[in-house]
Amino acid sequence: MDERTEISALGEFGLINHLTQNNETKNASTIVSVGDDAAVIDHFGRQTVISTDLLLEGIHFDLSYTPLKHLGYKSIIVNLSDIYAMNAIPTQVLMSIGFSNRVSLEALDDFYAGVYAACEEHGVDLVGGDTSTSQKGLVISVTAIGEVAPDRFVKRNGAQPNDLICVSGELGGAFLGLTLLEREKKIFETTGAQPDLEGQSYIVGRLLKPEARKDIIEYFAEADLKPSSMMDISDGLSSDIMHICKESNTGCVLYEDKLPLNEDAKAFAYQLLLDPTACALSGGEDYELLFTVSQADYEKVKNNPSVSVIGYITDVTEGKHLITRAGNKHALVAQGWNHIK
Amino acid sequence: MDERTEISALGEFGLINHLTQNNETKNASTIVSVGDDAAVIDHFGRQTVISTDLLLEGIHFDLSYTPLKHLGYKSIIVNLSDIYAMNAIPTQVLMSIGFSNRVSLEALDDFYAGVYAACEEHGVDLVGGDTSTSQKGLVISVTAIGEVAPDRFVKRNGAQPNDLICVSGELGGAFLGLTLLEREKKIFETTGAQPDLEGQSYIVGRLLKPEARKDIIEYFAEADLKPSSMMDISDGLSSDIMHICKESNTGCVLYEDKLPLNEDAKAFAYQLLLDPTACALSGGEDYELLFTVSQADYEKVKNNPSVSVIGYITDVTEGKHLITRAGNKHALVAQGWNHIK
Repeated sequence: MDERTEISALGEFGLINHLTQNNETKNASTIVSVGDDAAVIDHFGRQTVISTDLLLEGIHFDLSYTPLKHLGYKSIIVNLSDIYAMNAIPTQVLMSIGFSNRVSLEALDDFYAGVYAACEEHGVDLVGGDTSTSQKGLVISVTAIGEVAPDRFVKRNGAQPNDLICVSGELGGAFLGLTLLEREKKIFETTGAQPDLEGQSYIVGRLLKPEARKDIIEYFAEADLKPSSMMDISDGLSSDIMHICKESNTGCVLYEDKLPLNEDAKAFAYQLLLDPTACALSGGEDYELLFTVSQADYEKVKNNPSVSVIGYITDVTEGKHLITRAGNKHALVAQGWNHIK
Repeated sequence: MDERTEISALGEFGLINHLTQNNETKNASTIVSVGDDAAVIDHFGRQTVISTDLLLEGIHFDLSYTPLKHLGYKSIIVNLSDIYAMNAIPTQVLMSIGFSNRVSLEALDDFYAGVYAACEEHGVDLVGGDTSTSQKGLVISVTAIGEVAPDRFVKRNGAQPNDLICVSGELGGAFLGLTLLEREKKIFETTGAQPDLEGQSYIVGRLLKPEARKDIIEYFAEADLKPSSMMDISDGLSSDIMHICKESNTGCVLYEDKLPLNEDAKAFAYQLLLDPTACALSGGEDYELLFTVSQADYEKVKNNPSVSVIGYITDVTEGKHLITRAGNKHALVAQGWNHIK
């Protein structure tokens, strides 16, 4: 049933034409898009924000349980998340892809369907990239560009003692989704049994189809709220809050009972005898926003139902701690995902 | 003698700190550099130009004869070349690298020494990137950003009939360097004989340590000369002039006796029974600039000794031809390097 067209039938330029034939630009700032040596972008009076990510097969994703369309979508999202984490609005992306000859044109089309869906969802233009064969494995490199009004960008180093620590959405779901899929993969490999993902669409979706929190950045603009520091949670809350503390030269206190956990995720964690709090602290790839605001802005963050206040910033001498439900105080440990081990 | 430090001893963030500890910003437009979710760049009143390239081991380079420092240098240069090819000045780069556990910290240091040398040479700031392990092979992805005054950028689609076709430097050297190194590699593999590169430093250097033609872009600014179209020669002259003709909807005539060939390169071509003209037409990776100017600008290009006028643009109906030394007319064939075969 499935068609299989060898990419070699098109050649590099034929392939680029094929993949970009329906690519329309959405941003007035996009002056020159795909098809020249470089893209040209006009950011008069605004500052350009730029970020890049590498996604490698076998390290960042496993094609045995990752649909290519989802992978294309996620590749864009993880980069846009970095742009939002600067309090900027993404405007353009560049997508480079290297693939072995086992990848068909139809497979690439699936991947790009996800890429274009993410671009559409976030109003960004695909303005360039590179395509290549690889000897082995799928190689994805995405660069995202955004813009921000001067002095509105938010770095990691601006947190002050007594600032409130806030996080969007819910934590730990992507880690549990990964745990489930890896478990089912092992079962399939040893017994041939089909994956049992019954009732686990939330955690699987958190891993395979994450979202970038555009809505939070839009809320900041509406509410005229500028966080004192911000980053996105890609390595895990404990690892990432420690980055903010290090860059800002502060300490912090987090409250276990304030950590936003999803009920489905919690249930699955218990089933695996995992501590949901540990999953929320150390699980990565949630792509939620972690930020700090001054106490004067408490009313503004309280009004957004997607935001949880989970602790506060302290003087650096006070260290970095978690207060448990029972009232005990534990030093935070960075146990985030680390692709270089 | 040689030290070998495992990268795992540092971890990802330790590695990034190590690789960027001497990284100083050179451009006033670089507001936020390495170390946050994204870099922030101020391009008030100028347009941002952006380009990206993927370089994969076994496809784009062979570590058996490519020193890592040269590879780092070249990875930056090939991207800057794309920025110059837009008539823009590069200002920032992002470098992503994926490497297997056979790569030591000392090897990465060599690679980054080349990266920083290229940045220094071209006055660009390294403002971001990504590091990751890979399952197999070295993966390099570079994104370069540049700036250009509004309406000074040069695309591929502006060539007009009667415009002069010009090229900087000399052509075919990198292809001959590759041919030599591949030959010596095969000899080494079968006989164990050490490579004989005697007298071939020119062609080997053209492949392993190419330059991007900043000087030509600076000359355009000094001479107040704006080419009607431009691109850099990465796939080979015949393939690349055909891109300009396709995008500009024109034909062209090239003259064999005007093609700029290096004497050392010619001598080596003859030694291999290769036609130096074919090497100049189809050899890639020279990273020279190919551009067109109106005839009124002839005096301006004539004054630059690095520029050769090699032909002219025709109406599209006249096709794309090479006039040989003997006065024969041949249709041009695109036989450039093609990484997707």
